[in-house]
Amino acid sequence: MLGKEVHTRATCTASLLAVRDALDALSGKWKLQIIIALKEGPTRFKELQRTVEGITPKVLSKELKDMEMNDLVKRHVYDTMPVSVEYELTPHSNTLTKVINELRNWGLLHREHIMEGCRKAKKQRQTA
Amino acid sequence: MLGKEVHTRATCTASLLAVRDALDALSGKWKLQIIIALKEGPTRFKELQRTVEGITPKVLSKELKDMEMNDLVKRHVYDTMPVSVEYELTPHSNTLTKVINELRNWGLLHREHIMEGCRKAKKQRQTA
Repeated sequence: MLGKEVHTRATCTASLLAVRDALDALSGKWKLQIIIALKEGPTRFKELQRTVEGITPKVLSKELKDMEMNDLVKRHVYDTMPVSVEYELTPHSNTLTKVINELRNWGLLHREHIMEGCRKAKKQRQTA
Repeated sequence: MLGKEVHTRATCTASLLAVRDALDALSGKWKLQIIIALKEGPTRFKELQRTVEGITPKVLSKELKDMEMNDLVKRHVYDTMPVSVEYELTPHSNTLTKVINELRNWGLLHREHIMEGCRKAKKQRQTA
């Protein structure tokens, strides 16, 4: 466990490489958000774009292609009129559950920490 | 726990917001790598640039400023000749330990998964 073990140059380098691998596959601010959105089940492109607020169709399309390459999502094309395309999570994407949980927990904690800092600064200004 | 609870639209939205907060503070591929590098103790700018391979001085400088704003690193200026500047982790940055551990674990698992896929594809080509 990082932080509990003696932190040597070797463990630092090993951590850096593994975290870099993870960040390469999850790069940018969208991929984990897309995965969370797809947890509701197979979703059409347009619906996905609505759930992941702020993403453009071009970026969503690129992100989904990257994620297919990393076996995180699967694309299904249905022979309807017009053709419909759905995206669904792969079993491999489930291995990200702990990462997403920890990021969610940290997001909540970090927001509280920053807001606490703001409250303290305001108090200091008022008593100064 | 995401993935173990019933996944409703409300929990999806709450997760999206918290993960977005986290990703905003940790955006890009460098910040977590900088944090891992700083786990060795207070470090000078040049040394940090050497440890985080591939980062340019301009980007490193911008990332460190962002991280100072988010109370993840502290900058120390020493009145030496020439002036020396060191960066050090804040207590708040320690709250990222679990996130980093999970990303590291997932990085190792993901690399193995992708390599396994490559091995299978190669075997199929050879037996085809």
